[in-house]
Amino acid sequence: MIPFNKPYFTGQETEYIKDAVAKGKISGNGYYTQLCQTYFEKKYGFSKCLLTTSCTDALEMAAILIDVKEGDEIIMPSYTFVSTANAFVLRGAKIIFADSNPKHPGIDEDKLEALVTPKTKAIVPVHYAGVACDMDKIMDVAQKYNLYVIEDAAQAIDSFYTGKDGVKRALGSIGHLAAFSFHETKNIISGEGGMLVINDPTFSKRAEIIWEKGTNRSAFFRGEVDKYGWVDIGSSFLPSEIIAAFLWAQLENSEAIQSKRKEIWNQYFEGLKNWAEHHKVQLPFVPEHATNNAHMFYLVFPTLEQRQAVINALKEKDIYAVFHYISLHSSLYFDKQHWGGQLSQSDNYSNCLLRLPFYFELNPSVVIDAIIK
Amino acid sequence: MIPFNKPYFTGQETEYIKDAVAKGKISGNGYYTQLCQTYFEKKYGFSKCLLTTSCTDALEMAAILIDVKEGDEIIMPSYTFVSTANAFVLRGAKIIFADSNPKHPGIDEDKLEALVTPKTKAIVPVHYAGVACDMDKIMDVAQKYNLYVIEDAAQAIDSFYTGKDGVKRALGSIGHLAAFSFHETKNIISGEGGMLVINDPTFSKRAEIIWEKGTNRSAFFRGEVDKYGWVDIGSSFLPSEIIAAFLWAQLENSEAIQSKRKEIWNQYFEGLKNWAEHHKVQLPFVPEHATNNAHMFYLVFPTLEQRQAVINALKEKDIYAVFHYISLHSSLYFDKQHWGGQLSQSDNYSNCLLRLPFYFELNPSVVIDAIIK
Repeated sequence: MIPFNKPYFTGQETEYIKDAVAKGKISGNGYYTQLCQTYFEKKYGFSKCLLTTSCTDALEMAAILIDVKEGDEIIMPSYTFVSTANAFVLRGAKIIFADSNPKHPGIDEDKLEALVTPKTKAIVPVHYAGVACDMDKIMDVAQKYNLYVIEDAAQAIDSFYTGKDGVKRALGSIGHLAAFSFHETKNIISGEGGMLVINDPTFSKRAEIIWEKGTNRSAFFRGEVDKYGWVDIGSSFLPSEIIAAFLWAQLENSEAIQSKRKEIWNQYFEGLKNWAEHHKVQLPFVPEHATNNAHMFYLVFPTLEQRQAVINALKEKDIYAVFHYISLHSSLYFDKQHWGGQLSQSDNYSNCLLRLPFYFELNPSVVIDAIIK
Repeated sequence: MIPFNKPYFTGQETEYIKDAVAKGKISGNGYYTQLCQTYFEKKYGFSKCLLTTSCTDALEMAAILIDVKEGDEIIMPSYTFVSTANAFVLRGAKIIFADSNPKHPGIDEDKLEALVTPKTKAIVPVHYAGVACDMDKIMDVAQKYNLYVIEDAAQAIDSFYTGKDGVKRALGSIGHLAAFSFHETKNIISGEGGMLVINDPTFSKRAEIIWEKGTNRSAFFRGEVDKYGWVDIGSSFLPSEIIAAFLWAQLENSEAIQSKRKEIWNQYFEGLKNWAEHHKVQLPFVPEHATNNAHMFYLVFPTLEQRQAVINALKEKDIYAVFHYISLHSSLYFDKQHWGGQLSQSDNYSNCLLRLPFYFELNPSVVIDAIIK
C-alpha cells in the first residue's frame, strides 16, 4: 500500500520530549520553542518568529495584529485551504477571492489591483506547493494602496524568491507577516503546528501579547514590567514544548529531509514528463523567480474525468493520490454571501489537479510505473 | 529546590507517541484523540467530548457555539484566568464580572441574579481549585432567564457535585458546555491542551464542524456527505495526535495520580490546620455539595503583607509558592472599559491567596515545616 502521506520520524523526537519533561517545563514558550524560533530567524532572515499550534492560528494572530474590523476586505486566492479565509472571517472581514494563475495554482498577480477598493486592508498570497508568487508585483500593489501583505507560507518552508533587485529572499520574509505550517503533510512536521513570522517590527510587541493570551507575560519574564496581567485580546496560540521538541528533531534533520524530497520530486518529473506531454497533462511549473522546495508533486489533467480515471487506476493498485481544494468561492459557506463572480482557473485546479503520494520513505518509481503503464 | 510545579511523566507517553507515528497519523482526530474522548465520555457521563489545543480554545469554541454577538453580556467571576474572559471578548461580548464567594474563590452564586439583564447570554462559573460551584443555584438562574451555562472546569477534572436531588454528577457534565485544561500545572497533563464537553446535544454537529476548521470533514469520514468543504466559521481547534498520545498515558494512570495528589493534599491540610487557625489563615474550603480533586492547596492570609512574608521566607529556603490571578476587573485591559464596580472578595483573593507547591513527586512535609517553623 502506498498512502498519500506518511509522517517522517527522525528517531530523536521522543528523546527531546523526554528532555523537555526532565527540564520541568512542557507548557509553551520553553527551551525547545526558543530553539526552533531562533533557528528560523537565523536561517531565513525572519525578523521574529512565534511558534503556534497551527498555521490557522498563525493566520488568526495576523488578522488580530492588522486589526481587521467588520467589513474590511481581504484579497486572497479562492484555491486555498479554508483557514486562509476563516482566520479573517472570524474577525468580521469580507473575503474577496482572486483567481489563480493559468500557469500554477498561486494567485494571479496581474488581476489583483482590479480587486482593491477603499475597504481593502490586506492581500494574502498563498505560495502553493511552496512555489513563490511574484512578490514584487504583490508588494507594489500593497504599497500603492497602503495594504498589508500576509504570506500564507503553509507549504513554503525552505523556499525562495528572487526579486527584480536580484536578491534571493526566503518565502515568509517578504510580507509584513507570514504563516507557516508543520502539519503532518508538510516537509517539516509536528503533527499539528505552525509559526507566525513578524517582519514588520511595529507588530513585534503586540504579537507576543496576543500569543500569550492577551497578557504581558513575556515582558514580565524579561523584567520589563513588575507584574503581568490582562492587557489585550489574545488566545492560547503557543504550542506545548512537547510539540516544539518534536519539531526541533525535524529541524535538525532538515537538510537530509529536503535533499531526499528533492530527489523524489526530480524522479517524478523525469519519469512523468514524456507521458505528461503525450497526454496533455500539466506538470508543476516553477517560475524563474522561484525555487522548488519539493513540498508536493501535482498533475493538472485536461478534464475532471481523466483525473478521476487516474485516481481509480492507482487506487486499484493500492496507491492513494488525492485532489486538493474545492474553490472556496463555490463552497456552501461562501455561496450564502451571494457571490456572483467566475474564477475559471481556480475551478480548473479544483477539478483537474491531482497530488501524487509524497513522503520521505517513498519510492516514486512504483507510482510512476502505475501511471505510465 | 522545590518548584511550584513539576510535570509528571508516567514513562509511557513517548511509547504512545512512537505508536502514533507508526500508525501513520500524527495530525489531529486520530486513534489517541478518540481513545481520550471516549474515556471521558464513559467515565464522567459527558455527552460528547472534543480535545482542543488548550482550555482557552475550548472556551472559544463555546463562545462560537452559543453565537456570541457584539454587545451580548457574559457573567463570570473576576477572579479567574484571562482566557475565561478573552474567549468571549474575541466574539464581541461585554463581560460582566461577579464577585467571589467569601468562603472560597468561586463565583458568589447568590449575587448572580442581580447581574442579569436582557442582554445576558451566558453564565461562566469557574470551579476554582476543582471545587464545585453551587450548580443548582446557577442552573436555576440560567433556566429562569433562558441563559447558557458554560462550566470553566479547567481545574476540575475528576471532581463532583451533589445537587439537591441527591445525585452526584461530574463537574463538566452539568452546564450546556464545559471546558477542561491539561496544561502542565493541572492534575492530568499534556503540556498545553484542553477539551470541550458538549452536554446539550443541539450543539454536537456544529461543534465538530467548528473544531475541524469550519468544514464538514468529520461527517465526510463517517460517510454522511460525499465531499467536504467550507460550511461555517471555525478554527484548527484539534490537537496533534502527539499531544493526545501523551494525554492517554496520563489518563491510564489517573487513579494513581489522583490518589497520590489526595495524599499530598491531606498532608498539607493536617500539617497546617493548627498553624492556620493560630495565624487566622484560611485553608481551602470544600462545601458539602462538592468533592476535592486535590488540584491545588492554597492559603488565604489576613493581609497581602503576611502573604508576601511567607513567599519570601519560603523563597529563602528555595521553595516556590506563588499567588494567583489579579482580578480581571482591575486589569489594564478592562480598566479602559470604565468599570466602576467593587468586587471586594475577588480583590481579597488577588491580594491574599497563596498557592503552595503541588506535584506528584512532592514531599509536602518539607514545605509544611518551612511554613510552621
